[in-house]
Amino acid sequence: MCGIIGTILSTRNAAEKIMLGLFAEQHRGQESCGMAVSDGKSLQLRKEMGLVKEVFPQAILDTLPGFAGVGHVRYPTRGKNCESNSQPHLIKLLSGPSFAVASNGDIVNYKSRRKLLEDDNVFFESDNDGELLAKFIAYYIVRRNNSPEIAIAELIRNVRGAFSTVFLTRDQLYAFRDPWGIRPVSFGRINGKGWVVASESCSLDILGAKSQREIEPGEIVIFESYNKCKTIRYTDFGEAVEPQSRRHCIFELIYFARPDSYEFGEYVWNVQKQIGSSLAKDDKEINPDLVISIPDSSNFMALGYADFKKIGFDIGLLRNHYVGRTFLKPEQRIRDEAVRQKFNPLKGYFKGKKIVVVDDSIVRGTTVRKIVRAIKKTGAKEIHLRIGSPPVKFPCYYGIDTPTREELVANQKNLEELREFIGANSLKYLSMENLKSCVKHPENFCQACFNGDYILEPEAGFSKCNK
Amino acid sequence: MCGIIGTILSTRNAAEKIMLGLFAEQHRGQESCGMAVSDGKSLQLRKEMGLVKEVFPQAILDTLPGFAGVGHVRYPTRGKNCESNSQPHLIKLLSGPSFAVASNGDIVNYKSRRKLLEDDNVFFESDNDGELLAKFIAYYIVRRNNSPEIAIAELIRNVRGAFSTVFLTRDQLYAFRDPWGIRPVSFGRINGKGWVVASESCSLDILGAKSQREIEPGEIVIFESYNKCKTIRYTDFGEAVEPQSRRHCIFELIYFARPDSYEFGEYVWNVQKQIGSSLAKDDKEINPDLVISIPDSSNFMALGYADFKKIGFDIGLLRNHYVGRTFLKPEQRIRDEAVRQKFNPLKGYFKGKKIVVVDDSIVRGTTVRKIVRAIKKTGAKEIHLRIGSPPVKFPCYYGIDTPTREELVANQKNLEELREFIGANSLKYLSMENLKSCVKHPENFCQACFNGDYILEPEAGFSKCNK
Amino acid sequence: MCGIIGTILSTRNAAEKIMLGLFAEQHRGQESCGMAVSDGKSLQLRKEMGLVKEVFPQAILDTLPGFAGVGHVRYPTRGKNCESNSQPHLIKLLSGPSFAVASNGDIVNYKSRRKLLEDDNVFFESDNDGELLAKFIAYYIVRRNNSPEIAIAELIRNVRGAFSTVFLTRDQLYAFRDPWGIRPVSFGRINGKGWVVASESCSLDILGAKSQREIEPGEIVIFESYNKCKTIRYTDFGEAVEPQSRRHCIFELIYFARPDSYEFGEYVWNVQKQIGSSLAKDDKEINPDLVISIPDSSNFMALGYADFKKIGFDIGLLRNHYVGRTFLKPEQRIRDEAVRQKFNPLKGYFKGKKIVVVDDSIVRGTTVRKIVRAIKKTGAKEIHLRIGSPPVKFPCYYGIDTPTREELVANQKNLEELREFIGANSLKYLSMENLKSCVKHPENFCQACFNGDYILEPEAGFSKCNK
Amino acid sequence: MCGIIGTILSTRNAAEKIMLGLFAEQHRGQESCGMAVSDGKSLQLRKEMGLVKEVFPQAILDTLPGFAGVGHVRYPTRGKNCESNSQPHLIKLLSGPSFAVASNGDIVNYKSRRKLLEDDNVFFESDNDGELLAKFIAYYIVRRNNSPEIAIAELIRNVRGAFSTVFLTRDQLYAFRDPWGIRPVSFGRINGKGWVVASESCSLDILGAKSQREIEPGEIVIFESYNKCKTIRYTDFGEAVEPQSRRHCIFELIYFARPDSYEFGEYVWNVQKQIGSSLAKDDKEINPDLVISIPDSSNFMALGYADFKKIGFDIGLLRNHYVGRTFLKPEQRIRDEAVRQKFNPLKGYFKGKKIVVVDDSIVRGTTVRKIVRAIKKTGAKEIHLRIGSPPVKFPCYYGIDTPTREELVANQKNLEELREFIGANSLKYLSMENLKSCVKHPENFCQACFNGDYILEPEAGFSKCNK
Repeated sequence: MCGIIGTILSTRNAAEKIMLGLFAEQHRGQESCGMAVSDGKSLQLRKEMGLVKEVFPQAILDTLPGFAGVGHVRYPTRGKNCESNSQPHLIKLLSGPSFAVASNGDIVNYKSRRKLLEDDNVFFESDNDGELLAKFIAYYIVRRNNSPEIAIAELIRNVRGAFSTVFLTRDQLYAFRDPWGIRPVSFGRINGKGWVVASESCSLDILGAKSQREIEPGEIVIFESYNKCKTIRYTDFGEAVEPQSRRHCIFELIYFARPDSYEFGEYVWNVQKQIGSSLAKDDKEINPDLVISIPDSSNFMALGYADFKKIGFDIGLLRNHYVGRTFLKPEQRIRDEAVRQKFNPLKGYFKGKKIVVVDDSIVRGTTVRKIVRAIKKTGAKEIHLRIGSPPVKFPCYYGIDTPTREELVANQKNLEELREFIGANSLKYLSMENLKSCVKHPENFCQACFNGDYILEPEAGFSKCNK
Repeated sequence: MCGIIGTILSTRNAAEKIMLGLFAEQHRGQESCGMAVSDGKSLQLRKEMGLVKEVFPQAILDTLPGFAGVGHVRYPTRGKNCESNSQPHLIKLLSGPSFAVASNGDIVNYKSRRKLLEDDNVFFESDNDGELLAKFIAYYIVRRNNSPEIAIAELIRNVRGAFSTVFLTRDQLYAFRDPWGIRPVSFGRINGKGWVVASESCSLDILGAKSQREIEPGEIVIFESYNKCKTIRYTDFGEAVEPQSRRHCIFELIYFARPDSYEFGEYVWNVQKQIGSSLAKDDKEINPDLVISIPDSSNFMALGYADFKKIGFDIGLLRNHYVGRTFLKPEQRIRDEAVRQKFNPLKGYFKGKKIVVVDDSIVRGTTVRKIVRAIKKTGAKEIHLRIGSPPVKFPCYYGIDTPTREELVANQKNLEELREFIGANSLKYLSMENLKSCVKHPENFCQACFNGDYILEPEAGFSKCNK
Repeated sequence: MCGIIGTILSTRNAAEKIMLGLFAEQHRGQESCGMAVSDGKSLQLRKEMGLVKEVFPQAILDTLPGFAGVGHVRYPTRGKNCESNSQPHLIKLLSGPSFAVASNGDIVNYKSRRKLLEDDNVFFESDNDGELLAKFIAYYIVRRNNSPEIAIAELIRNVRGAFSTVFLTRDQLYAFRDPWGIRPVSFGRINGKGWVVASESCSLDILGAKSQREIEPGEIVIFESYNKCKTIRYTDFGEAVEPQSRRHCIFELIYFARPDSYEFGEYVWNVQKQIGSSLAKDDKEINPDLVISIPDSSNFMALGYADFKKIGFDIGLLRNHYVGRTFLKPEQRIRDEAVRQKFNPLKGYFKGKKIVVVDDSIVRGTTVRKIVRAIKKTGAKEIHLRIGSPPVKFPCYYGIDTPTREELVANQKNLEELREFIGANSLKYLSMENLKSCVKHPENFCQACFNGDYILEPEAGFSKCNK
Repeated sequence: MCGIIGTILSTRNAAEKIMLGLFAEQHRGQESCGMAVSDGKSLQLRKEMGLVKEVFPQAILDTLPGFAGVGHVRYPTRGKNCESNSQPHLIKLLSGPSFAVASNGDIVNYKSRRKLLEDDNVFFESDNDGELLAKFIAYYIVRRNNSPEIAIAELIRNVRGAFSTVFLTRDQLYAFRDPWGIRPVSFGRINGKGWVVASESCSLDILGAKSQREIEPGEIVIFESYNKCKTIRYTDFGEAVEPQSRRHCIFELIYFARPDSYEFGEYVWNVQKQIGSSLAKDDKEINPDLVISIPDSSNFMALGYADFKKIGFDIGLLRNHYVGRTFLKPEQRIRDEAVRQKFNPLKGYFKGKKIVVVDDSIVRGTTVRKIVRAIKKTGAKEIHLRIGSPPVKFPCYYGIDTPTREELVANQKNLEELREFIGANSLKYLSMENLKSCVKHPENFCQACFNGDYILEPEAGFSKCNK
């Protein structure tokens, strides 16, 4: 998973704004971050492993003057092959034009699109989707002497998958999105000062920008200057069969997005509360003494659950938020992520109590198992685990870093086996039906990770590593 | 403020345990950290600026073999004079014995005690209380050929102030505490493996240690080996007028300690909930739509308030927990601490609502003011601010980093002026009376920051900087 | 200026060999370094600002397993535009093949060649010659389905300028050189273990490789495995007018190469000694008491001068070799390079003496001026400055980092003015005639920096910054 | 071994001067460095592992304003026990006075002196001689209410061993030296701006200071302000039997000092040349074709040898001066110090030649052995090794980091065995007699490492590690 930012301003401090915007999106990617900035004459790029506040201290920002720019944060990846794949990607044409791209989402026909380009001499340095998008656009600009907007439209017609993307030239900023609107992206206005595009609206908030709206699926917004922008659709320049429905990623609302963001026409916190209520509604047989979350990801679900039950939400696990440098050896990382270091159950809290623990989802099931055991040890009488999503049974091809089908515990154990593995007194998932009732337009959402209904099948040879 | 750790084990991995224990106490001090470890022959010291996980990666821990040790985390200080004052402090005697000390708390007769030692040729490298304690003990061991326990008893008789301290020799670990028990410290047992002493019980939890109890005020616990310990009192070796009452720091329970810690015979979370209930009980005229905290410090107070009102606690502010390196330039620090970077109010949450915001205390009032304004901007109808403590009017001489009397806003504005400054529709503090009702033995607590009733007046010339 | 390394081995420790080889070539570039390594399946790249021993500690080498690789060190550049231009450059084809290129030398038709590629959709990330070479080769492989050797031959036919280059695929290593042989490159054999290609033979020495010979101008050597190699010429695959003569860079022998290297059929130390003798031969009127060098660059010239005069060489200036990190602020760099920090004249050495100071060349004249003044201050009676090369009057277009024509002091002052500026009692340059007598085949050398006779005129718009 | 600096100025940039002075003394210690600076009100200390230019970049110097200060560089030590022993040492008295000490040299009655202090309650943090000196002085100032000069005089009367020391108070700088003058230290004047004290005169040169003279053995120089200084002797304040002769360390002139320094009344380069001549004088039977040094330590000895033989000095080995960070793992360090990485014999230079190699001394014999072999491999006919000092048979107790008696190869092999071990055709040492002829006052020198004649026997229990 990744986060993106773009900005175009009346002032030359784009780098500082991008840094702050990326800081607000740090939860979308903690491995590496980068930005490309334009001062009107040329583009400068800087990207590095590390957290935003580490990679971009003031002294570095000072070396990146510019009125416009794009930025990116990137999630920890697993494989060695992915190591040099950070964004943005930069292209400089001899004749002057320069481009930079930052994108969030996976391309499912990555290989065939790259092959098209490679067949026409476009070479690649990495396996990164962002590089594909950058070169695709450059190719259509250079080959057909197209304007950037036509090149982008061509890209949207050709490239299939999830992409919420910002594209920077020396004097303009573009933002566009795949026709299904899989990943979030919206834009806002800093009063009299300029535009900001961001994966999540919490980034607009930190910059004091007034959110305008999401970039529409298939839309291309052209920010011509700090106070001018226009919008077109990828279908404006050629035939294309537009998708009949949107396919927003439901998992963004369940887990990934920050609860204070507004995404896909929904307040994230509100959807999560609805999920909690919905879980409670189906839980009539249980009268818990306490309802707790696993902080912070299921806080609002637990709040919703407790609200419905009218018994009051409780905080029963303390989470340690201190982290150090990100460059740890693998063994250390494992140890660092040990549940005991991160979560501590309150003493004297659970004794003799019947507890509902709400979690957002189960992927491998190992963390929640350790937490349930830790709570049990403090004297809880019963632990009832409620999951704010249906079982995750299918990998995501559009940008969420889920493991293979085999590693998903819901494919390995039935409900009773899983309950026993975790050690809970009962275990219930949110039903697909109920999930739908928690969002305004369920038909607009991709739920492939739950039901395997992929709107876009990946090509043969698709590998999750070229994200 | 600071946090301490001590351990003595059957195995040689004391450094790793100390690192983990300090990690759990990181909230007590984020400026510097250090540890001294004994392998039975000599003591090794390492201390540095930075967070625990940065200063003590595995590669460094590997260079610190030992079965016993003491550790320390230290709070950001303000003045230049304090910069080289990190702990532990180490003393090596030519004849073999070596000592290390880590302590939490301020000494109010620091100057006169140091003068006594200086008059007898003991020299100092820093202005740190920990160095005073280390040298005081060494002085009594060497001068009078005393045992460490007698030296420690002498220290407790002589030095006045707050000190929860661990003292390491080449083969034993000691833990002791001032006769008023101002700062917390407890100890626990890792089954069959050894002892752990820690400022807070959450440190014992992370180490899998079973908490035994607090070190008593005036008590000296001697951990002779991983499975033997004995206890004495400072009055065992000489006359001394013991204080008639304890003076635990009430502010630990209100703000400083982690809610999952058990301190002063109280579950911290529980006291904070009681405070919340107590605030609600006196708030009959208000029927709020929402009750929120300022995360995470007033979470449990808000929970208590909401519980009493039976209206359900809510999370209305999102907090960004990502932090980078700690070595920031002053201007950056200020900017980093900007409220907007740290807290974001949920959109669509407060619109038209009557909200109770619970905070733990008001020191300068600037942060809560910005938060109240930010919530107002999202459309809240009314904001009622409730403070989980009486007005902070007096500086702390025993280790809390409060500003001078003049800088405390409660000394500058009356309640109505302060309400207006903050921009809340109403403002109420917890009364002294109600605060007392929230702990089992109110007579055991120091409340000097609220009432100016200092059990130990600082000497003339006492400076808060030698902490 | 830059240095390159390539290796193909029977073992998987190519990274360590490349690191050592680069270490021996550190004098050719101290700004950044990098390497690309193949394990037979894929190529891994790592490049960073800093010295070789800093960028490639053992822990990093351990993450770069591979049996073959290429490496690069790069000289400090001045302009901001050059900052992200480090080498090697990597290209990965979807169908499997991957390439990496490291090159030394400047391309004078860089712009038109890049335009050719750009016109056919090949995009660039940097202004670096190495990227041009990498993409040119990839283009000819992919477009015409050519073998790497034919693509390289095509490159040599098309690209004009200086290039001593290594090219890595997943299983083979190639080394080639422009038809004029402007920059050095030779190869050697590690007995029974593999091949090494290096800018200078001192790199072969450090690796225990037995030097075989130079790569010939226009030659392509294909290292098929650790014990097989074959050679072709770029003319084997198509018509081409081969240059009638070589144009080795004479400045390599005068200044750039390490004296222990064997380059262009000459022992560098030996040429420098010949130069010294030649200077002395024309200096009959002078009977110096002392002959000194400016360490370490003119040591052998001074030795040659002293030998001829039969008066014994002397060391009169001490040089401080300690350097710290390379990331210094500009102002510091200037200060660091202050002559007084680097050179100290011996006290009591020059008093009343008539001294010949031999330097290798004069570019701006400011350093030698400070040194002459410092020696004067110690009491020298006369200082006669002898320069081991003709006046540098023309910029180099083939890779040496000389300033513009205007900044070359030899274009600003006549001999007498320059002598006075420097403060020497006399000043003599080596004559062009004499320079020729110091190498075996003077007709094989480019001396454009002295006589402006450029074999390859740069294109309009050629900028020294795309090096 | 270590180097020291002290300065007192009319301006507030003492830190920058100390940094530069330490940079010139970097050869005396590369492990750690530090400085203490006074702004007239208080002393600030900063010390860290690393090279001077790394530890003290401009940004750090800017945080150390002050008009006076002392600095220190420290040599790599071997044992774990020595790790936290860097200098300067700081003492702050409650009543105001503060002191800092930096010293070069070992104290042979360290233990008994420390015991005296410890018996009177003075405690130690390290095993460092500098801390002993700092506390000794503080003790005499505080205990007897003495002036610093009397305390220093007392110290010189009591402490035996080598110490060239600078002592800083809040407003004055003191420099003093043991009565035998074992280690060098001199002082100079920056015209109208202040004083500088330094281990070596090359430090004065880099600061533009005019050298005044050495601090005399037993002398205490008090720099009262930037333009006032006075001098006393330790015997001025009490009886003391002054040593009848000096005992300057002869090894400083042979190996340790920079050749451009003036030490012990001798130009270091000149003594080394004399040594070379002396070796040649006794070498009548040999007519070498070449005379080379092992750069850079025996350059001047080889020059002297060649001069005498009138055959011209040659440079036959190239030395690689690039070094990276100093924090290397032990194994790497070993590898880094591999002879092949550091020295490369010129190719085509030695073929068929009879060579004299001059080295300054033999300690373990392993490095010279590898060099001799490497030269042999290049085709040398004969290699005659000449050593510019007598056999090193005895450890140094006064500050040179020689190994134990058993590790000194001259105690393990006789001359013929050693010659064979090294692989030279002949091997000759400088005789004691000849060594004496190379300095003006041989009776003033300690030659204990050659003849075991220790002026000061170390106490029982003396360990070389408390340096």
